[in-house]
Amino acid sequence: MTAQNSTQEVQESENNDHLITSQDPQHPANLIPELCSKFWHLGWVTGTGGGASIRNDNLVYLAPSGVQKELMKPEHIYVLDITAQPNPKQRIYLRSPPNLKPSQCTPLFMAAFTKRNAGCCIHTHSQWAVLITLLLESAQNTTMFEINNIEQIKAFGKGYTKAGNLGYHDTLRIPVIENTPHEEDLTEYLEEAMEKYPDTYAVLVRRHGVYVWGESVHKAKTQCESLDYLFQIALEMNKLGIPWLTNVKPIA
Amino acid sequence: MTAQNSTQEVQESENNDHLITSQDPQHPANLIPELCSKFWHLGWVTGTGGGASIRNDNLVYLAPSGVQKELMKPEHIYVLDITAQPNPKQRIYLRSPPNLKPSQCTPLFMAAFTKRNAGCCIHTHSQWAVLITLLLESAQNTTMFEINNIEQIKAFGKGYTKAGNLGYHDTLRIPVIENTPHEEDLTEYLEEAMEKYPDTYAVLVRRHGVYVWGESVHKAKTQCESLDYLFQIALEMNKLGIPWLTNVKPIA
Amino acid sequence: MTAQNSTQEVQESENNDHLITSQDPQHPANLIPELCSKFWHLGWVTGTGGGASIRNDNLVYLAPSGVQKELMKPEHIYVLDITAQPNPKQRIYLRSPPNLKPSQCTPLFMAAFTKRNAGCCIHTHSQWAVLITLLLESAQNTTMFEINNIEQIKAFGKGYTKAGNLGYHDTLRIPVIENTPHEEDLTEYLEEAMEKYPDTYAVLVRRHGVYVWGESVHKAKTQCESLDYLFQIALEMNKLGIPWLTNVKPIA
Amino acid sequence: MTAQNSTQEVQESENNDHLITSQDPQHPANLIPELCSKFWHLGWVTGTGGGASIRNDNLVYLAPSGVQKELMKPEHIYVLDITAQPNPKQRIYLRSPPNLKPSQCTPLFMAAFTKRNAGCCIHTHSQWAVLITLLLESAQNTTMFEINNIEQIKAFGKGYTKAGNLGYHDTLRIPVIENTPHEEDLTEYLEEAMEKYPDTYAVLVRRHGVYVWGESVHKAKTQCESLDYLFQIALEMNKLGIPWLTNVKPIA
Repeated sequence: MTAQNSTQEVQESENNDHLITSQDPQHPANLIPELCSKFWHLGWVTGTGGGASIRNDNLVYLAPSGVQKELMKPEHIYVLDITAQPNPKQRIYLRSPPNLKPSQCTPLFMAAFTKRNAGCCIHTHSQWAVLITLLLESAQNTTMFEINNIEQIKAFGKGYTKAGNLGYHDTLRIPVIENTPHEEDLTEYLEEAMEKYPDTYAVLVRRHGVYVWGESVHKAKTQCESLDYLFQIALEMNKLGIPWLTNVKPIA
Repeated sequence: MTAQNSTQEVQESENNDHLITSQDPQHPANLIPELCSKFWHLGWVTGTGGGASIRNDNLVYLAPSGVQKELMKPEHIYVLDITAQPNPKQRIYLRSPPNLKPSQCTPLFMAAFTKRNAGCCIHTHSQWAVLITLLLESAQNTTMFEINNIEQIKAFGKGYTKAGNLGYHDTLRIPVIENTPHEEDLTEYLEEAMEKYPDTYAVLVRRHGVYVWGESVHKAKTQCESLDYLFQIALEMNKLGIPWLTNVKPIA
Repeated sequence: MTAQNSTQEVQESENNDHLITSQDPQHPANLIPELCSKFWHLGWVTGTGGGASIRNDNLVYLAPSGVQKELMKPEHIYVLDITAQPNPKQRIYLRSPPNLKPSQCTPLFMAAFTKRNAGCCIHTHSQWAVLITLLLESAQNTTMFEINNIEQIKAFGKGYTKAGNLGYHDTLRIPVIENTPHEEDLTEYLEEAMEKYPDTYAVLVRRHGVYVWGESVHKAKTQCESLDYLFQIALEMNKLGIPWLTNVKPIA
Repeated sequence: MTAQNSTQEVQESENNDHLITSQDPQHPANLIPELCSKFWHLGWVTGTGGGASIRNDNLVYLAPSGVQKELMKPEHIYVLDITAQPNPKQRIYLRSPPNLKPSQCTPLFMAAFTKRNAGCCIHTHSQWAVLITLLLESAQNTTMFEINNIEQIKAFGKGYTKAGNLGYHDTLRIPVIENTPHEEDLTEYLEEAMEKYPDTYAVLVRRHGVYVWGESVHKAKTQCESLDYLFQIALEMNKLGIPWLTNVKPIA
């Protein structure tokens, strides 16, 4: 039952509390608690599930494991230097909160930063995300959520290799990976999906939730919101017998 | 993929920040952020979708594009003089926020102000609005939402050409227009619907959302709320097999 | 289209603002706005629909017509002396807010105070209340909502003629009256239901909402909450094919 | 109609208000009101139903009966010494709020403290909990809620006799007991379930709600949240025809 990819977590000798101390509400150590509280009220990070991480140049700020998301504080935040990680089996923190453990989402957040140069990555246990993966599973274990001709699709960027946002008639595609018993073991499957679908900003995890990232906190957060909106609407469409994909002809 | 009706946006040489600076909570530059935050919590303006605009005599105050609606501030607001717009292809702003773009809803809000003399116009991506348009689409592409004999209908004015509000037995009719790839291209269809249905205070946009207006912020906002209530109840009625239109005889 | 029971509304020569001015948060003029804001967030008083009224000895405090419920203030409150009303066709106010109109719910609230000696009466447009009346209508126009063997039923008093609360195995019965085009015309049907069912604390209005009252604000508010909870659960039970009435045998 | 296990409630001669007076937000007399308000907003303790209790060494802090949960204050809290209770028929309080009654949940909370050494016990009337018991009832009166292969299951401890948390492939099992007319009469059935299922952290009560406990407030609260999440998702799975138990093979 031990994770295959288990990582050694190391705290540097000095605990740099100045890295999480700022009066600026836009500082990642202040923003992560604010985001997590907002996500808790949206039902995305129930019971300490899910999390959020922000990268600012070389510094990565991470929500810890096991903290009630609506009660998170700046002093709970981990900080590491993304350029100073010796190998995948060891993680060196510039700043660690006392008495807490790093989130098991850490390697997945790191994948978004290293593979996609993301500025922010969000992980939710949104019920609608989970239900969409269940619907796809019961439809021959499908591994792609696809929807088009819904205005909210335009909230998504076309991807890292393309400029601009999706159009109304474009199809938004979110790959689904299977869940693993240990969250950190998801990393290789997430990275695989990132390579196979280089333009996606999100990956669904079967019976688990969703990872969403973006160039900035603004992008990651608004794409995560838009995606949850689409999951909710897609679930209702399913109940009403309305297909997610249509061939609406442009009228203008 | 370029919008047919794309408009040149011009900022006057002076940036009149005094137009959005006021201690009065009822000032449009304060009201729009308050409304947008409220709408975000109602799920109407998820992921920067949707928006709101207020007209005060000749001045029009507009929410910008791409701002998280629950975080909007007075300094994000655009202002223009409705009487000083040279032609439909050019829009001159008295005040523009730095580093932001005007909302693509702008020409649609302007239609409500110029064609209907509205004091406020709201655009939401409400899921219930979208689902109602999908239900109507799957019922032979119907272009009119109709409901009667629900008390909440009385919250609607009879229209610009008639005094008073709808009665309980009256039928509320909201026309549906088809979506276009570019939001500003919706303008001509919205204006067409306004001319065809001069008494409507709202237009649904297929697979997109709804535009609602009124003589005042109060009217636009309460009609928008009442309409969303009716969309929600209509969706449940559909699931329960209860028709939206009935011939209940007056008992008093 | 004029209401049959339309009432002349009279303001006494002096406008007694001291009646709605208090530092005590429990004062009715402070409590009604707080309740209305809470009810707005519960979706009970959308778009200025619904309302609330409190009686303190002889004084009755009433929310006005047409005010956004989450924005209500003490200065919006009407006050009248219940012992100083000359006849049903005329209502004399000790204190009226300027520029507002009395709520059309006023005679219905008065019925709860005069016929039932209630201390508080609440009217909501709760969607769940409306949907329950629609379900009953589609089941042969039934005029009684009945449910038993749900713990929450115990939140209800047995009634004015009986001590204590309903037991778990008791059946909660809420009569349904038909809606009328003019809200004040509902009064005679509400009073009729009060006489026919002397122990009920609530009456559903078909396709409209519900009136709930109680000896105190606490009782009216908690009964209104419990009833809405039961409406929601009853709607889900209906979708799942589970009957509202069962013959569960006591096991203790 | 009198409860079989009715208990004599005794207040010690001195009323120790210092036991509920603290500036520390983590003090149980401050935490219980904060939790109850949060639970009210989640719809778990509607209409004064449900409650929460915290044990700190020998002292037990209890929410009272009949208080609106979103308005609870430290002065409403009961305190007793768990080691100074003479017999099950008598309960001696170190501190009682004036004009209130102890909650009927008290003996059930005490069972979690004495039988399970819990640090916190929460009782909700969550609609989703009730609906799950109704679904199980309509499926041959089943007395066990079982679900597996949903990530959120990992939020649950394996139990008092086992270290660590449930794994993703483990099955979460929550026993269901039948409701009784008097809440305190539930105690013996709750204790029975605790003995039969020594590792459970929760017991569902048919047509009533759920009791959830944990070593700490953090554990009880996050398990209660996770359970409600699972009830909601299980209800949706039922509507979509997706089974709660599957034989997904580990892929890593």
